[in-house]
Amino acid sequence: MEKKLPACPVETTLMLISDRWKVLIIRDLLDGTKRFGELKKSVGSISQKVLTANLRSMEASGLLTRKVYPEVPPRVEYTLTETGYSLKPVLDAMMAWGTAYKKKSNASAKA
Amino acid sequence: MEKKLPACPVETTLMLISDRWKVLIIRDLLDGTKRFGELKKSVGSISQKVLTANLRSMEASGLLTRKVYPEVPPRVEYTLTETGYSLKPVLDAMMAWGTAYKKKSNASAKA
Repeated sequence: MEKKLPACPVETTLMLISDRWKVLIIRDLLDGTKRFGELKKSVGSISQKVLTANLRSMEASGLLTRKVYPEVPPRVEYTLTETGYSLKPVLDAMMAWGTAYKKKSNASAKA
Repeated sequence: MEKKLPACPVETTLMLISDRWKVLIIRDLLDGTKRFGELKKSVGSISQKVLTANLRSMEASGLLTRKVYPEVPPRVEYTLTETGYSLKPVLDAMMAWGTAYKKKSNASAKA
């Protein structure tokens, strides 16, 4: 768990997920466990280095777990913790807002 | 309105508010219209330059309006548009999550 959380709970949430990659990683893990390569593909134009850094930081914050299977080559899987999964309402609200904004934006582009 | 919105609505929302300052500006304007100086104070350790840049970008995205009153010195006020205000459920979800995370975090720090 992180130390010294901000007084404002909105800032606490931002401290943990203000990075856009983190939000996209959560979006993709809400569907279920994913391997590193699957995540890299689904998140989009993220580099291996940046994806690794974000996954480690999210593991440290208690948002996800990393499990290594001793195979050759090793299989590494990432799963949201209960805390990570509980961000679903935030993502749902973002999805609803983004959908409405796009609709309005398209309507004004046509007008 | 912005052009070329991403296919995923979550990404659309992120494109507009992934900057943490933008979220804090929205948080503070949800209470009502604010002057530049009031915003600078309520948002926190933001520089005048960065606050101005964020406000202009949010005005361009249709999230807020800027009104200048021809006084000496000129009074400048910022107000959320209907689109900006409609982000309230996203902020509410962040506030609920941040509150729960802080509670858990405090409980585990004491254990």
